[in-house]
Amino acid sequence: MKILTRKENLNNAIQQVQRAVSLKNPLPILAGIKFETRENQVLLTATDLDIGIRCSFPAEVIKEGTTVLPARYISELVKRLPDLPVYIESDPDSGSVKIQYGKSETRINGYPPEEFPELPLPEGIYTFTLPGDLLKEIIRQVVFATGNEESRPVFMGVLFEINGSELQVVATDTYRLAWRRVILENYKENDISLIIPGKTLNELLRIIGSNEQIEVTVTQNQILFVSGNVWLISRLIEGSFPKYKQVIPQDHILMVRLKTKDLLDATERASLLVQEKSPVIKLNIAENKLIVSAYSEAGRVHEELDVYQEGENLQIAFNAHYLGDVLKVIGSEEMTIELSGPLSPGVIKPVGNDEYLSLLLPVRLREE
Amino acid sequence: MKILTRKENLNNAIQQVQRAVSLKNPLPILAGIKFETRENQVLLTATDLDIGIRCSFPAEVIKEGTTVLPARYISELVKRLPDLPVYIESDPDSGSVKIQYGKSETRINGYPPEEFPELPLPEGIYTFTLPGDLLKEIIRQVVFATGNEESRPVFMGVLFEINGSELQVVATDTYRLAWRRVILENYKENDISLIIPGKTLNELLRIIGSNEQIEVTVTQNQILFVSGNVWLISRLIEGSFPKYKQVIPQDHILMVRLKTKDLLDATERASLLVQEKSPVIKLNIAENKLIVSAYSEAGRVHEELDVYQEGENLQIAFNAHYLGDVLKVIGSEEMTIELSGPLSPGVIKPVGNDEYLSLLLPVRLREE
Repeated sequence: MKILTRKENLNNAIQQVQRAVSLKNPLPILAGIKFETRENQVLLTATDLDIGIRCSFPAEVIKEGTTVLPARYISELVKRLPDLPVYIESDPDSGSVKIQYGKSETRINGYPPEEFPELPLPEGIYTFTLPGDLLKEIIRQVVFATGNEESRPVFMGVLFEINGSELQVVATDTYRLAWRRVILENYKENDISLIIPGKTLNELLRIIGSNEQIEVTVTQNQILFVSGNVWLISRLIEGSFPKYKQVIPQDHILMVRLKTKDLLDATERASLLVQEKSPVIKLNIAENKLIVSAYSEAGRVHEELDVYQEGENLQIAFNAHYLGDVLKVIGSEEMTIELSGPLSPGVIKPVGNDEYLSLLLPVRLREE
Repeated sequence: MKILTRKENLNNAIQQVQRAVSLKNPLPILAGIKFETRENQVLLTATDLDIGIRCSFPAEVIKEGTTVLPARYISELVKRLPDLPVYIESDPDSGSVKIQYGKSETRINGYPPEEFPELPLPEGIYTFTLPGDLLKEIIRQVVFATGNEESRPVFMGVLFEINGSELQVVATDTYRLAWRRVILENYKENDISLIIPGKTLNELLRIIGSNEQIEVTVTQNQILFVSGNVWLISRLIEGSFPKYKQVIPQDHILMVRLKTKDLLDATERASLLVQEKSPVIKLNIAENKLIVSAYSEAGRVHEELDVYQEGENLQIAFNAHYLGDVLKVIGSEEMTIELSGPLSPGVIKPVGNDEYLSLLLPVRLREE
């Protein structure tokens, strides 16, 4: 392989794929980035076997071929290259790859390219597009609610369910749940139900540029997102997602409406003084006031917020960090909390938007 | 104690003193920040017993007094306070301190203020001022050459020596040495020779604002820097600094002149491919060319730079990281390297400036 390209192109592509490089994997070649020539461009690929990221960049292909370079060295070197044309040439006999710039050169020992795992692009069963900004918003609003217990993989994923033109996106770790609905215009494929790893979606957030259309291709056990010149390929999670609809309370005995920022700020301050092992924040709602309180050995917080209240007075306690997570992504100036009792889940919604809700299980308070 | 102040004033002062807070010290009160009222202002103090930082901020003093608050909680809380007037009130009986903002309040348990170590401002034997920007430049140009072996405290410090109106500043870890000279206009005190801990000077870099005059006060065993409303107090290092002048070579058999950036960039790229345990970079000077090279198991670098050469051809090797450290702070577009032989120290100087030099011991090359 021999190519000629510009530092900036090379650097951008390496930064994109590098997140999929796996430095800790027992398979040493997964610490590498694969270079493959195409017509007038080079494809870079990295994978940790769960996720693969591929990125193309323009280059003059002087000699076709494939090579795999250690991500650590090539990325640090390319960052520091001068703004000169860069030649990359592999010597299949020695396994060494020459990076040449001006009158200087660096040789890096490559990996045997035939050992790099194949990462075939899935042949689509279903393909559709979504505006990148919308997809980002959806992911941010639900992905925080995924769990992290390897023993329960379904909860580490996010359910994407399309019925007709309605896309519903849900995540839950059984302590909290986040749900988002979107109407897909122009969706013409069959109904779909699939579980995407939370980790994949967090990587996708980083890859999606602004004002881009994201092409999504789904197969039996894989999903592919294409954003400009970047491909993100991921396995899907097998298993059936819990029936979440029956968990969402339909009624309530108390509704409060308030400014999202007021409660977020109070929650963040209170989170400083919760007990590490039991990060409890107490909400006491009465007479159009919401009292936020928390305490630990280090001190106590007592905050008083003005709210609009409909229904009974009530005291309830939540995990302070879980409450903070929701408030950060709700995305509306005003919000409501609907409660049915001190031991029933609370429902948090943006005001003027029925397409999002988040549910939080309360913490049982010990008698003080 | 009861005070009324603004969030911004409080936050800035806490950020300044927080660097001296010692979270690991066996004396728990050193994890605290001391609040002391003065007329129309409050003094904050933190210390790890080596360094103390003090900062004042304007406040309405409603009730005089002293209190010590855990740095971790007070700093995180104040960052998150709303932009409202903030009251801080200590209750000497319970040891609890109330921070009040709007209709809300947080109570943090304080430390007994009488346990906080006294940190008297040194009564000056000598006092003089230096422009902050100049002092920053001097520190940056020498402090990297200090050592970090606790067993040899003198090498962990920087020598400040004033003779007449000439200030010479020197640091060495015995493998390298950095020297800077400045003419102090208006210096009227006696001659001084003192060793300031490198750690103190690194903290000072952070504190010095731009376009500020720094007031320096020296006693037998302490030094005080005052920058605006911030005081930095430090112990001095006892002992005698090695006689460094005889180490600096007066002659050379080879001088090369080149662009600082060319060598810095090549050195940084070469540093990626040096051996971890023996980070050697080789400089081969011949016929107005400087070849920079390095190698490790991962690969090899070979860079060719155009230089102006006076004298013999020579090959010499240095610690790549030490060479990079000098090149980053030399501060001139062009530089020279003067060499007297492959086993004699190299001298690096900015072109057109006799007030700075850095000396590097070479690495003995094994026969390859």
